[in-house]
Amino acid sequence: MKSHFSEARSAEIAIERMGPDAPPRLVEVMSSLVRHMHAFVKETELTPEEWEIGVDFLTKTGQICSQERQEYILLSDVLGVSMLVDAVNNRRPEGATENTVFGPFHVADAPVRAMGDTICLDGKGEPCLFEGKVLDLDGQPIQGACVDVWSDNAEGFYDVQQPGIQPKWNNRGRFLTNEDGRYAFRGIKPTSYPIPDDGPVGKMLESMGRHPYRPAHMHFLVTKPGYQRLVTHTFVEADPYLESDAVFGVKESLIARYERTDAEDAAWRSTFDFVLAPL
Amino acid sequence: MKSHFSEARSAEIAIERMGPDAPPRLVEVMSSLVRHMHAFVKETELTPEEWEIGVDFLTKTGQICSQERQEYILLSDVLGVSMLVDAVNNRRPEGATENTVFGPFHVADAPVRAMGDTICLDGKGEPCLFEGKVLDLDGQPIQGACVDVWSDNAEGFYDVQQPGIQPKWNNRGRFLTNEDGRYAFRGIKPTSYPIPDDGPVGKMLESMGRHPYRPAHMHFLVTKPGYQRLVTHTFVEADPYLESDAVFGVKESLIARYERTDAEDAAWRSTFDFVLAPL
Repeated sequence: MKSHFSEARSAEIAIERMGPDAPPRLVEVMSSLVRHMHAFVKETELTPEEWEIGVDFLTKTGQICSQERQEYILLSDVLGVSMLVDAVNNRRPEGATENTVFGPFHVADAPVRAMGDTICLDGKGEPCLFEGKVLDLDGQPIQGACVDVWSDNAEGFYDVQQPGIQPKWNNRGRFLTNEDGRYAFRGIKPTSYPIPDDGPVGKMLESMGRHPYRPAHMHFLVTKPGYQRLVTHTFVEADPYLESDAVFGVKESLIARYERTDAEDAAWRSTFDFVLAPL
Repeated sequence: MKSHFSEARSAEIAIERMGPDAPPRLVEVMSSLVRHMHAFVKETELTPEEWEIGVDFLTKTGQICSQERQEYILLSDVLGVSMLVDAVNNRRPEGATENTVFGPFHVADAPVRAMGDTICLDGKGEPCLFEGKVLDLDGQPIQGACVDVWSDNAEGFYDVQQPGIQPKWNNRGRFLTNEDGRYAFRGIKPTSYPIPDDGPVGKMLESMGRHPYRPAHMHFLVTKPGYQRLVTHTFVEADPYLESDAVFGVKESLIARYERTDAEDAAWRSTFDFVLAPL
């Protein structure tokens, strides 16, 4: 079969070129990718100058990546692709807590702490009590679930972004639920912060008239054998960026109440129950 | 308007986020891009592991780029995107010679040579006389058109890929058509060669069961004020890679005849007429 180029059949020609021994899933993914890339070029009638801008952008995005910085994940995040990949892979039954993006700041094996302990080690920020239950879809408590939490500090930075400045494990910890499915810990009311915006992705956001901020949130990774791994955040209600999270992480159901308290050790209290779906 | 994430409206939500002051063309291009990226993820139900492979591939493709190497252009080439961008921007009336990809090896301001001169300075390869006419759509000769030509040497490398090994301007030159619209020069019958395949794009081609070869071709850039700039190749007929050019550059109409001759100074003769479309 002839496979000389033609504008009309450009995507099919590129797809048909794959060999008979290419892995079927690779063929499926690359076919979809090629079809959409070609449709994009045809739809926009992309000019050679625009194509060059694109090549230059992709090159610079790769070149700024390092051990400490992953600009391509950032690109995926700000175009809503990361959230979408998360969503299609974590569809859950009604009533189960929804996932959101994992983000780049989780650290495995954070210290396991006792019920009610604090995770804030730098003494900065407004103290907040986080509490609630981990339940199954029938509302029954799940005992011994691991609630792994992490947040930025009062200045908007995670400990791993400021080694030597923040104490190690600042605003991180793991907690186990008791027989009532209850978890509780003290931390700080998180603050909103910008994603790194001094690279190609930041420039792109600016050209598109978008800001780089994420609304304040506490990260949760809740696990228990027999249940689906829950990767989520709870967002601080009334945060000014809830409607415009730079990475589209906000889901209505994940906005948590924050109430003022008159307790000596916590100016705020945020209650949130997590519902795990079975495997 | 609420713009919390939802799987169903993921692309629209990302698109609506662009600000009112973003340039209209940028909004148009980014909207199409986001719509197609999201459709790709939904269609393939891309897994987090596959997404990671993609992020890693894009990062490595950027990081191998240097002054001498542009792996993103190569990626665009092997997925047929470069040819498509060229095609949508160079639609011509019936009868006009078709464009094909420019490629990375053109050098501006090659020496202007006299009718019939040779461009082969390293004495390698099978000598070939290239001749023909530059015509307008009515078949009338165009005098004084600039025919800028370049090819690889007998070993499959362009002079710029082997500085210090090949003579400067080897297999390059500019020729002006005479009052009959005629051009003629001596070069070599070009040879097929692989695109650089030791990077991420080469690995991708291999996984897809594709080879990295381009069929043998002579590059032509034909210009004359008042006419559209023609960027094209003529391909060597019967080349084994004509049906499987790694960058999809072959168009049926660009395959040229190569005849054996018994001339002393040319073992081959390749005749090709170029027809320029008016501006």
